[in-house]
Amino acid sequence: MKQINIGIIGLGVVGSAVAEALKRNAALVAAQSGIQLNVKKGCDLRKVKAACPVTSDAYALINDPEIKIIVETMGGVNPAKKFVLDALAAGKHVVTSNKELVASHMPELLSAAKRRNVSLLYEASVGGGVPILAALRKNLAGNTLTEVYGIVNGTTNYILSTMAEEGKEFSEALNEAQEKGYAEANPKKDIEGYDAAYKAVILAAEAFGERVKLDSVYREGIEKISGEDILYAREIGFAIKLLAIAQKGDRGVDVRVHPALVPLSHPLAGVRKNFNAIYVQGYPVGELMFYGPGAGGEPTASAIISDLIELGQAGTIFRRELKDATVKPIAEIVSRYYLRLQVSDKVGVLASIAKIFAEKNVSIAAVIQKETVGSLATLVIMLDEAVEKNIQAAISAAKKLSVVNRVNNLIRIL
Amino acid sequence: MKQINIGIIGLGVVGSAVAEALKRNAALVAAQSGIQLNVKKGCDLRKVKAACPVTSDAYALINDPEIKIIVETMGGVNPAKKFVLDALAAGKHVVTSNKELVASHMPELLSAAKRRNVSLLYEASVGGGVPILAALRKNLAGNTLTEVYGIVNGTTNYILSTMAEEGKEFSEALNEAQEKGYAEANPKKDIEGYDAAYKAVILAAEAFGERVKLDSVYREGIEKISGEDILYAREIGFAIKLLAIAQKGDRGVDVRVHPALVPLSHPLAGVRKNFNAIYVQGYPVGELMFYGPGAGGEPTASAIISDLIELGQAGTIFRRELKDATVKPIAEIVSRYYLRLQVSDKVGVLASIAKIFAEKNVSIAAVIQKETVGSLATLVIMLDEAVEKNIQAAISAAKKLSVVNRVNNLIRIL
Repeated sequence: MKQINIGIIGLGVVGSAVAEALKRNAALVAAQSGIQLNVKKGCDLRKVKAACPVTSDAYALINDPEIKIIVETMGGVNPAKKFVLDALAAGKHVVTSNKELVASHMPELLSAAKRRNVSLLYEASVGGGVPILAALRKNLAGNTLTEVYGIVNGTTNYILSTMAEEGKEFSEALNEAQEKGYAEANPKKDIEGYDAAYKAVILAAEAFGERVKLDSVYREGIEKISGEDILYAREIGFAIKLLAIAQKGDRGVDVRVHPALVPLSHPLAGVRKNFNAIYVQGYPVGELMFYGPGAGGEPTASAIISDLIELGQAGTIFRRELKDATVKPIAEIVSRYYLRLQVSDKVGVLASIAKIFAEKNVSIAAVIQKETVGSLATLVIMLDEAVEKNIQAAISAAKKLSVVNRVNNLIRIL
Repeated sequence: MKQINIGIIGLGVVGSAVAEALKRNAALVAAQSGIQLNVKKGCDLRKVKAACPVTSDAYALINDPEIKIIVETMGGVNPAKKFVLDALAAGKHVVTSNKELVASHMPELLSAAKRRNVSLLYEASVGGGVPILAALRKNLAGNTLTEVYGIVNGTTNYILSTMAEEGKEFSEALNEAQEKGYAEANPKKDIEGYDAAYKAVILAAEAFGERVKLDSVYREGIEKISGEDILYAREIGFAIKLLAIAQKGDRGVDVRVHPALVPLSHPLAGVRKNFNAIYVQGYPVGELMFYGPGAGGEPTASAIISDLIELGQAGTIFRRELKDATVKPIAEIVSRYYLRLQVSDKVGVLASIAKIFAEKNVSIAAVIQKETVGSLATLVIMLDEAVEKNIQAAISAAKKLSVVNRVNNLIRIL
C-alpha cells in the first residue's frame, strides 16, 4: 500500500486534530482510501503535545525529501504565506485551512503550485467539515452554477441564533459566544464579516472560476442587528442570517457579505448555533444545500484529510483556469429590503415617506407600525425589488424629513 | 483534451436529461473537468427524441469499441442487469441510476467490474442530485462513520409534507402527489418503503463497507400515518418523516426504513416537498447534512455526469472491500416511541396500561389525552428508550385489555 509522509505546520486546534485523527483512524483510512497517511513531523513554535514528533523549525518539514505533502494550519498571512510558497517551490503539495491566505493571495499561490506541477488544496478553508469545495470542483463540474450563498461564519450564526432564540441583544449574545469559545477575544474578523468575505472569494473561484479581489467584496457585519429587527423579521416570516453571496450573471459576478432576511421556509433559516450551510443553484442539478460544523478542530481536520486522500489517490488534480472577475458594484444590485425607522407619531408621516420612495422608483410592499414611545413610532417597511442605489438615495432623502427621527436599519431580503 | 465516448441505455426522463445537459453544458464541462464527454449513442425501444443518435439495440452500444462508458438509466432489474453485466464484461465502465439493481445485486455487479478492472458507479441511485455517495466514498474516507440516515424518498416526503402543511389525509395527499407527478400510478414501491430500503442498502455499503442483504432491511411504509399523528406529533415538537437509517455498532449494523418522529429542531424536520436530505455522523467530522432534489431527470443527470467526470479524470477508482454485514434484528433495536391508542374513557384505564408497560420494562415518559368521542378517548403516549421486543410485547398485552379499543399507531422517535 502507498504510504505518504506528511508534515503539519501549526499544531494548534486544527493541526493537532489532524495528527490525532490520522493516528486514531489510521487502519480505517487505509482501508477506505487505499493509502497510508503518515504524519512524519509537526511544527510549532510553542511547546505542544501532539500525536506526531514536533519541531520548531518549519524548514525541517519543507526541506525533508520524504515529506510529500505540507499541511498548513497556522492561520494568518504571515509567515504562513512564505512557508506555503516555499513548500510549493520545494515540489510539495500543500493542503491549507487558511482562508485569509487563500482569499488574499490565490493567484500567486496557484501559479506557484502550477510551476512545480503540484497542487494546493483548501477544502478546510470554507465550511469547516462540510465538503463544499470538492463538491463544487468535482461533483458539480457538470453544472452551470448560477448561485452559491450561505452561512459560512459560525460565530455570527451563533450570535444571531442566540439573539433569536433567547431574546438577547447583540452584546449579550457576543459575550455568551466568547464565554463558550464560539467567538474570539477580538471578534472583529467574524463580527464585521471579514471571515465571511474570505470565504465568498473562495466560493466564487470554485463555483464560477472567477478570480474576485478581496477588496471588491461588499461587506457588512452583524453589529447593527438588534433584537427588535430579529423579532419584527420573525413576525413577518423571516430569520436574519449573515450570508456570503456569490451570484453569476451575464455581466459579471455579484459577491457580497451582509445580514439578510431569509424566509423561514428556506432551509438556511433553520441553521442554528455555530453551524454552517451553503446553498448552491445550477443546471441541471437544481438546488442543493450542504450543512455541517463550520469550525472546530475535528471537523476542520476531516476536510484536511479529505484533501490529503485526494492528493494521495490522484497524484495531480485538475483545476479549471480562473479568469479575472468583473464584480458588480453594490449600488447596482437588485434586492428586496426591510427598513426600520423611527418617526414622529403624526398623521401624514407615512404619506411623506412613501412619496420620497416613489420619487426614487422604490415601491413599498408593506408597512407595519410597531410600538410607539412618547411621540415616536417605529415603522417597519418592506420594500419591493429595487436597485440598491435608488434605495440609498430614497433613504438619504427620507433622513432629511423632519418627521423621520432615525433610520435604524436597512437589511436586504434574500 | 481527452474525449470520452458514452452510450446511454434508457432514454427516459433521466437518460435524455443526461444527453441534453452534456450537450448544453459541453464547453463548460470541458473547462471545468478537463475532459470532453460525448454521448455517441443512446438506446431506447420506444420512439424518443434525444440530444444524441438513437438505436433500439443495446448491443450497438455495449459492443462499440469507441464507447468507454455505458450509462444505464432504464430502471428495474430486468433486462438492465444483463446489459450492465455484459457492458462490464466488455470492459466498459458503467454508471447507473438504478437503485433497485444496485441494492439487489451489488456483490455480483462489483465482482464483474473488478474482473475486468473497470468501475461501476451509482451516485444517482441515492438522493438524486445530492452528491452523497461521493462524499461518503471520498471526502469522508478519513472518518469513522457511525450513522447515516435521512429522507431518501421524495414521493413519501411530498405526501407527509402536504399532510402536515395542508391538513390533508394520506389518501388525499397521495392523489395530489400523483396529479403533480411526484407519485407513480402504482405508488407501492415508494409508499411502502421499498425504494428507501434500496437506498439504505447502498448507504450502508458506502458509509460502513457493509454488504447488507435487501431482505434483511426492516421496512415499514407511511400508509398508516394519519393526519392526527402528524398533528399530535407537532404539538409535542416533532415532525413525522420516512427515514432510511443505517447505524454501525460494535455488534453489527442496524439498517431499517420506517416513519419516525423527528424533533422540529433537527435539520431533517424542515425538509419539505419532494426534497431529500441525508444526515451523516462520524469522527472527526461530527454531523453533516446533504440536502437537495431527490429525483427528477435533471438533478439525477447531474449525479450521473459527476460519475462520468470522475471516471474520465481518474481512470480507475479505489473501492474499499465490502464485508458481509451482521444486521441487528428490529426486535433488538433501542428507541423511544410514540404510541396512539383509543381507550375507554374511564377512571383507571391509564393505570392498567401503565402496569402492563412496566411489567415489560417499558417506562412511560408522558401521556396526553386527546379528544373524546362518545365513550372513547384517544391517548398519545410517549415511551422512554426501550428495546423494541419489549415494546411489542407490551402492546400485545395492552391490546388484550378490555379498556383498550384499538392501538392506532406506534412510531419510533429519532
